[in-house]
Amino acid sequence: MTKGRTPKAETVAPRGNRRATSYDVARVAGVSQSAVSRCFAPGGSVSSGTRERILKVARELGYRPNALAQGLISGRTNLVAVLISSLTDLYYPEVLTELARQLTLRDMRMLLFSLETESEVDAVLHQVWRHSVDGVISAARLSDAQVELFAQHEVPLVLYNRTAVIASAASVCCDSVSGEQALVTRLLAAGHQRFAIIAGPEDSYVGEERRMAAAQRLAMAGINDVPVVRGDYSYDSGRAGLHAIAARGALPDAVICVSDQMAAGAMDAARIDLDIAVPDRLSVVGFDGSGPAGWASYEVTSIRQPVRRMTDAAVAMLTERIEDPDMPGERRLFAGKLLTGKSARLG
Amino acid sequence: MTKGRTPKAETVAPRGNRRATSYDVARVAGVSQSAVSRCFAPGGSVSSGTRERILKVARELGYRPNALAQGLISGRTNLVAVLISSLTDLYYPEVLTELARQLTLRDMRMLLFSLETESEVDAVLHQVWRHSVDGVISAARLSDAQVELFAQHEVPLVLYNRTAVIASAASVCCDSVSGEQALVTRLLAAGHQRFAIIAGPEDSYVGEERRMAAAQRLAMAGINDVPVVRGDYSYDSGRAGLHAIAARGALPDAVICVSDQMAAGAMDAARIDLDIAVPDRLSVVGFDGSGPAGWASYEVTSIRQPVRRMTDAAVAMLTERIEDPDMPGERRLFAGKLLTGKSARLG
Repeated sequence: MTKGRTPKAETVAPRGNRRATSYDVARVAGVSQSAVSRCFAPGGSVSSGTRERILKVARELGYRPNALAQGLISGRTNLVAVLISSLTDLYYPEVLTELARQLTLRDMRMLLFSLETESEVDAVLHQVWRHSVDGVISAARLSDAQVELFAQHEVPLVLYNRTAVIASAASVCCDSVSGEQALVTRLLAAGHQRFAIIAGPEDSYVGEERRMAAAQRLAMAGINDVPVVRGDYSYDSGRAGLHAIAARGALPDAVICVSDQMAAGAMDAARIDLDIAVPDRLSVVGFDGSGPAGWASYEVTSIRQPVRRMTDAAVAMLTERIEDPDMPGERRLFAGKLLTGKSARLG
Repeated sequence: MTKGRTPKAETVAPRGNRRATSYDVARVAGVSQSAVSRCFAPGGSVSSGTRERILKVARELGYRPNALAQGLISGRTNLVAVLISSLTDLYYPEVLTELARQLTLRDMRMLLFSLETESEVDAVLHQVWRHSVDGVISAARLSDAQVELFAQHEVPLVLYNRTAVIASAASVCCDSVSGEQALVTRLLAAGHQRFAIIAGPEDSYVGEERRMAAAQRLAMAGINDVPVVRGDYSYDSGRAGLHAIAARGALPDAVICVSDQMAAGAMDAARIDLDIAVPDRLSVVGFDGSGPAGWASYEVTSIRQPVRRMTDAAVAMLTERIEDPDMPGERRLFAGKLLTGKSARLG
């Protein structure tokens, strides 16, 4: 399956253990050292013939232009830190893939920080300052005080599906309010009358926004005091959530879950554990519209976040702020799209 | 939900726009500048009382010890590049989470590269050399010539679920051969006689190892010429794979899929699209043992990779090679564990 050794790789290894320098490349390529430097500097000017010759020699000598030294000179590292709360939330792989693609297109690299607990944020921020990243995209929860630190450290920040009550904060969000209201409106139109909500943790911004939007829309229809159980966005917590709801007595007609994974767990708790037909006896709706909740055994009725457009906007907003740190705050809201699955009866 | 502004964050902002230096920290903390440097240098010696005072002042002034400058001095960046083939393979979130945890424990950070196509490898390697990472863990496919480049560039490399026919290569793998053989042995013991395989792409190392191990075990039982269709590890390709198998005529008794996601797709193609009972009329087995294929609607019978032990070993092997670049090659094989799900009849 794999190719054999290339003879070239052995014959051009650096003499002794010394690493090839820009002077070595210049000598072999027959150009000045400054031409080599310009060739590897972002935006550096050098003719295309010369560039090709330099790149060929650099490859043969194993020359490694030093990003550290370049970073000290240019003040740019081309590193963008991406902070996410939990890699195991199956909504994130798609977001990370798109962010990686968007950053690569702009010649930037992703320094990934996965936060398992809130208490890790300070330690992670310390690392972010140390590595002199050009900017940060955070899908992890930051306090307003932590968001303030970015301005102090002069590190541009874009919040992803988060917000902050700070004038300078830039954020990209899927519109939870219009999304949940669309779902609840359709559930009401289909005649559902008794509801329960499987929400996220109390300190989760998106989870709380979705929970409150659903409760408000229900209140508009005269339905109040809707029972709420809390999960952590995972499949298991959705499954446990439905068991908790069922244990309270009268089963609702519809369960509103603030994530698709919890909706999948609730569906399985109903139809596999408790023998409750979905959607005939119980409608289940989710939120996110990506990942395995779309597989044929689930097809969760949900709101699909426009991940590609949202990540594109996040990277574009960050780039603007790297170039002009004084850009004012901004919150861009993206409308989600209703996915009609087979987990709910909709009117 | 979020806390209000902390007054401290405003009163200690750097005067003007100047960024705090180690001299500012030294002056306010009443220590020498060299004490501040030692405090932030890995392994630097400073008394614990002094360290606490320096850290407090550094935090208040927003002092950011510069990893770029430290990297130039120490020759270490504490950056480890992680290369993976496709972030959307739902087996990877768990691997990434564990790698992030293991690297953080060793005070290292993850520079993440997601490769969507093979042709991107050279461009990614160019970035890896530029960023002077301390080492690389690659779960993406590299040619032997590409693996050779790491030695030339003096960048330690550990391959994850890959291998290379180069003496110096270090790798961590789940034992596909023993895993597939265990699955096939149990399928044979349950009386299955007609098999088909849903394999990965021809250039996928793990996929081909699993396909060949299954075929060899079947050949030992006198079953040859087992039909093979190929997918890309995704749910959709497993679903399409089972349709392709069914279209050939006589349905097999058992379908061996080289990933759990493809097994989930094959299950849905059978029981939802084609009304074939799983496992009564058709057994389906997978490989990986993580993610949504374990959810109650699937419970794929599979081989569970010991992800925590494998990532632990990968990071430990990389650390050894960062400290001693002359470590000899090594391949550590980890046995998977049979997960008895409900997608297959086992003997």
